[in-house]
Amino acid sequence: MAYFKSDYTAGALPEIIDALTATNLEHTPGYGQDHYCKEAERLLLEVCGIPDGQVQFVVGGTQANALVLDGLLGKCQGVLAAETAHINVHESGAIEATGHKILTLPTLDGKIRAEDIDRYVTTFFKDDTWPHMVEPGMVYLSFPTELGTLYTRHELEEISTVCHRHHIPLYIDGARLGYGLSSPACDLTLKDLARLADIFYIGGTKQGALFGEAIVSANARLIPRFLSLVKQHGALLAKGRLLGLQFKTLFTDNLYFRASQRAVDFAMQIRQLMQEAGYPLFIASPTNQQFFTLPNDDMDRLHQHVSFELWGPRGKTSTPVRFVTSWATTAEDIQTLAHALKEIR
Amino acid sequence: MAYFKSDYTAGALPEIIDALTATNLEHTPGYGQDHYCKEAERLLLEVCGIPDGQVQFVVGGTQANALVLDGLLGKCQGVLAAETAHINVHESGAIEATGHKILTLPTLDGKIRAEDIDRYVTTFFKDDTWPHMVEPGMVYLSFPTELGTLYTRHELEEISTVCHRHHIPLYIDGARLGYGLSSPACDLTLKDLARLADIFYIGGTKQGALFGEAIVSANARLIPRFLSLVKQHGALLAKGRLLGLQFKTLFTDNLYFRASQRAVDFAMQIRQLMQEAGYPLFIASPTNQQFFTLPNDDMDRLHQHVSFELWGPRGKTSTPVRFVTSWATTAEDIQTLAHALKEIR
Amino acid sequence: MAYFKSDYTAGALPEIIDALTATNLEHTPGYGQDHYCKEAERLLLEVCGIPDGQVQFVVGGTQANALVLDGLLGKCQGVLAAETAHINVHESGAIEATGHKILTLPTLDGKIRAEDIDRYVTTFFKDDTWPHMVEPGMVYLSFPTELGTLYTRHELEEISTVCHRHHIPLYIDGARLGYGLSSPACDLTLKDLARLADIFYIGGTKQGALFGEAIVSANARLIPRFLSLVKQHGALLAKGRLLGLQFKTLFTDNLYFRASQRAVDFAMQIRQLMQEAGYPLFIASPTNQQFFTLPNDDMDRLHQHVSFELWGPRGKTSTPVRFVTSWATTAEDIQTLAHALKEIR
Amino acid sequence: MAYFKSDYTAGALPEIIDALTATNLEHTPGYGQDHYCKEAERLLLEVCGIPDGQVQFVVGGTQANALVLDGLLGKCQGVLAAETAHINVHESGAIEATGHKILTLPTLDGKIRAEDIDRYVTTFFKDDTWPHMVEPGMVYLSFPTELGTLYTRHELEEISTVCHRHHIPLYIDGARLGYGLSSPACDLTLKDLARLADIFYIGGTKQGALFGEAIVSANARLIPRFLSLVKQHGALLAKGRLLGLQFKTLFTDNLYFRASQRAVDFAMQIRQLMQEAGYPLFIASPTNQQFFTLPNDDMDRLHQHVSFELWGPRGKTSTPVRFVTSWATTAEDIQTLAHALKEIR
Repeated sequence: MAYFKSDYTAGALPEIIDALTATNLEHTPGYGQDHYCKEAERLLLEVCGIPDGQVQFVVGGTQANALVLDGLLGKCQGVLAAETAHINVHESGAIEATGHKILTLPTLDGKIRAEDIDRYVTTFFKDDTWPHMVEPGMVYLSFPTELGTLYTRHELEEISTVCHRHHIPLYIDGARLGYGLSSPACDLTLKDLARLADIFYIGGTKQGALFGEAIVSANARLIPRFLSLVKQHGALLAKGRLLGLQFKTLFTDNLYFRASQRAVDFAMQIRQLMQEAGYPLFIASPTNQQFFTLPNDDMDRLHQHVSFELWGPRGKTSTPVRFVTSWATTAEDIQTLAHALKEIR
Repeated sequence: MAYFKSDYTAGALPEIIDALTATNLEHTPGYGQDHYCKEAERLLLEVCGIPDGQVQFVVGGTQANALVLDGLLGKCQGVLAAETAHINVHESGAIEATGHKILTLPTLDGKIRAEDIDRYVTTFFKDDTWPHMVEPGMVYLSFPTELGTLYTRHELEEISTVCHRHHIPLYIDGARLGYGLSSPACDLTLKDLARLADIFYIGGTKQGALFGEAIVSANARLIPRFLSLVKQHGALLAKGRLLGLQFKTLFTDNLYFRASQRAVDFAMQIRQLMQEAGYPLFIASPTNQQFFTLPNDDMDRLHQHVSFELWGPRGKTSTPVRFVTSWATTAEDIQTLAHALKEIR
Repeated sequence: MAYFKSDYTAGALPEIIDALTATNLEHTPGYGQDHYCKEAERLLLEVCGIPDGQVQFVVGGTQANALVLDGLLGKCQGVLAAETAHINVHESGAIEATGHKILTLPTLDGKIRAEDIDRYVTTFFKDDTWPHMVEPGMVYLSFPTELGTLYTRHELEEISTVCHRHHIPLYIDGARLGYGLSSPACDLTLKDLARLADIFYIGGTKQGALFGEAIVSANARLIPRFLSLVKQHGALLAKGRLLGLQFKTLFTDNLYFRASQRAVDFAMQIRQLMQEAGYPLFIASPTNQQFFTLPNDDMDRLHQHVSFELWGPRGKTSTPVRFVTSWATTAEDIQTLAHALKEIR
Repeated sequence: MAYFKSDYTAGALPEIIDALTATNLEHTPGYGQDHYCKEAERLLLEVCGIPDGQVQFVVGGTQANALVLDGLLGKCQGVLAAETAHINVHESGAIEATGHKILTLPTLDGKIRAEDIDRYVTTFFKDDTWPHMVEPGMVYLSFPTELGTLYTRHELEEISTVCHRHHIPLYIDGARLGYGLSSPACDLTLKDLARLADIFYIGGTKQGALFGEAIVSANARLIPRFLSLVKQHGALLAKGRLLGLQFKTLFTDNLYFRASQRAVDFAMQIRQLMQEAGYPLFIASPTNQQFFTLPNDDMDRLHQHVSFELWGPRGKTSTPVRFVTSWATTAEDIQTLAHALKEIR
């Protein structure tokens, strides 16, 4: 069986398991005040080109999103985001639970546009009844998006410019950041992101860590009492060093990007195999998620050899599906898929 | 250096590291729907004597507390708890952030009393203005308490009886549950707790896991939409199997209780050493936390050999201190303390 | 000047001022425990045909909506509502501030459809990831809608049936209820509404009271600790009798419906005058709100004699406008409009 | 029957009823954008000596408190207040519902002390674990207190100084402000309060209005998006002019203070009568609330002629009671009490 169901079905990169094993009996202070967290913060800020910034490690992506939005949105402010945004669809109302509305922007490809943000904010304050409405106080986007698509450097610069002209912070959800930055279609660097976003997170969970996301901002004082807020959200890990240690490992010897690159390469191989087999792209994604439309018969037969996800309800004759690669994908997985594709014809 | 500062300064029991290593490359479904979580749930429910109950694993104690209280308290209800309760003092307002008030009961030793609960609830509904007040809707206690003290079986049965007479659920915070149940002073079993509490959690973080707490209730439907709430709180671990695997390991071959017992035994040795050295108990705790009053000079000199915590501000001549043992405490640590005590005289 | 800007620009029906004056120096218990509230509750339940129901008076509509939704929605539940719903657009995020998401349904005319509700709920539970999503826990609609449109009896019965089949309560916002029930296009009675909705409110503020809305439900225990919740929301009026007295007055001698009927009759006269003057309907509303498209020149000249509202931004050549009648509209106002229409030609 | 039960059992000062009647049919913009609100704001700021300040009118005291605290407290901040504070006891958890903890200070007489505030804040930041605790972010006090007691100018200046030294805003709940300022024991003026507090409210409901409280601050930008927050709390009255008109009336010709003075004078007469009758003070209050200890027999007999409140549960032989005067108290009420006291002997 080859595994393409998701990028969080396996454990962690072996280097991480090794690091956990090697340091297991060491005693360190709790709650992220240890030397591993400090070292990982230094490494991350260096690679982001913002040495005076701040890093806060948390366990998961919903935590990261809820923390940043709760920390940055003022009373009666909401966050602008794509209708398909993870925070709008798949976080069980975590943002609304902190009292804030998600103000949705239309999207076809999972991306939002600078002009839509600009129009929303400009129109908002022209309306006489604006004090009765939720003020757009922040912009959320994900890189890559839920649909695996990428913003170009030009698009992201436009969005950043619009946000800053309206004094609205820009936040980037980077759950799969590495897979985005390693895409052949990407013309952005991590330093670009750190410069264009006010705050963003570097995903670990889907990128080879057991768990963990690193919230990064150039402005170390962006969110007041951030550590207290992390605690209030139940997101302050007692043995915080587990986060520091993992990110230190990921950002030593370029491990994070090497693993990302390998996964994206495998994804491109999958795309080629599937297109050669005659299956059209359902969404054109240049990252580790690949979407195809499969005839139901083929889909059922393929499922006997390869695990992948239905992307939406089963159709009458064909169904959209998603294949995901990760740091854990192997050349054997790709081989298995290649064989299976031949077999089912 | 001997480490008695806290019970979350080291990593995890070697058996847990081994299990993580051995299963690292396995692919499993996410979010706790894997076979390790199912197996761990079965093991826990069996040892608790409630085979039809439910277990929900989460990463940390503040998450567990906020989830259970948010899930069980109705609108305009608050939770009765000791003034010294962790939720009242050290969780950064996590409970209030979910909209609920903590209704404090007085305490000398960290414990609350059945009669105080009874009086509070009875008096509440006698007051004509009760619709203007926060209704006591739940009882929180920790076992052991913040001060290391334990409820007797009789005390806990009285509290449970009062709660159920008033139709108020009883919740027990078991961050250090194993250290409580392994105390020579304990006349309660895990089965007793599962019977007397409506819901409780079995702590992992301080008991030898890397992280993780298991929320257990005999009534599997106690909290509606609990899984969604876990997600909303940002507490649903993507690679949920890490929690299942750790608890499966802890509750295989009695590892949890063996490790707890060893820690409590070491705590009793510390108590004996300190008392022999002439230092009075600050609080009489029969569990893995030991509290003493130390002359400042002795404290400063001891600190050069042994790590421990000040329990309150430094006094003019003497200061209360806390020594904590854990699964990671070794016979060498005790030896180091014994030597240090001789040396500083 | 004739006033058609809104239905809350004047004070109150003279009968209400008289009642306030006549009872001013009487001493009564506070917080709605007085005999006027009790009498008003009895009158309302009688006219609604639900003698065992419950009435809770509050000061305003946003209070009513936030209270009912906060009281009825469970954790991780949201409310289904039209995209144009007042709660979604014009209440400054009051619903999200209580922690709940608004799940929007598409609408052209301000109304939602039974089949859309059914599809949403059915699809929701078919999706494997539903625990990660906000559960539809309630349906909100307004009668009349924001656009002055009305549900037919058949439409509302279908919605009610769908809601109850899915065990989801139906709530009706009746800020302008009287103007809806008095429309020539309405085939529903107040008793029908009380039967079809689980809970609804009878608007006072826009219907001739100084302020006040009456939340009505057939099930007196629908919302637990409702009075406490009213207090918690800051919605419990100290001199609660002011609400009881006003609703008692409105529902004595049919005053509420007489005043509503007069306003709707005036609205129909406005429609006729405007259509005779050649201005097309922008929205076809059979209630006290009338929407037209006006050439900008005519609009500007009309504004010198008559007050009304722009319904959206000023267009290049023409603009949608809204004329609203109320209990305070007079035959003179209509005359003024008729003269003005002649004058501006 | 003489009425001393509370200061919100009657309607409003006749001048207010007259003003409502006289202006009833006038059309004005809604939501407080009318000329009465503007004129009232000007009058209030003038009498407070802060012409560049801001006034926001709301309907009730719980609204005022929840709004100000929700608006001013940052994430993870709580409000310091007396254990007996209205917000801590009688507002149904309205503050916690906005996500904030009330940090209680001990009190004997309803007042808090500058030194206790200072100690709390200073100690807080000395504790290593402060990021795990709720930060004191604001001070709440009421003038007069719940027990009718008053801060001296010296006490309030000390509190104000401590607050500002720690950069913590001071908020004063003035539900009965007029009765405080009109007390013979008061050495403070309204201008003093406006100078010493960062924000406070001038009570109307208990001071002769039908309803209404005026939130006043010298800094017009103290709370960002305040109007939106008022709407979000359901506290933005549609016919806002009702609030402006009442406060305009109260602060024209010194009506507010004349009515307060009369009430306090009557309270002093009650105190004299009761003390002459041999009933000891239960609390020494120099304002419109008077507290006595009554033998139960006398209390029961007095209750046949005079309405007043039990202040706590009925005792075995005697019970604390509260007599409250107001703008509605008459010389006849005092006469009735005097007669009743003679009769029951």
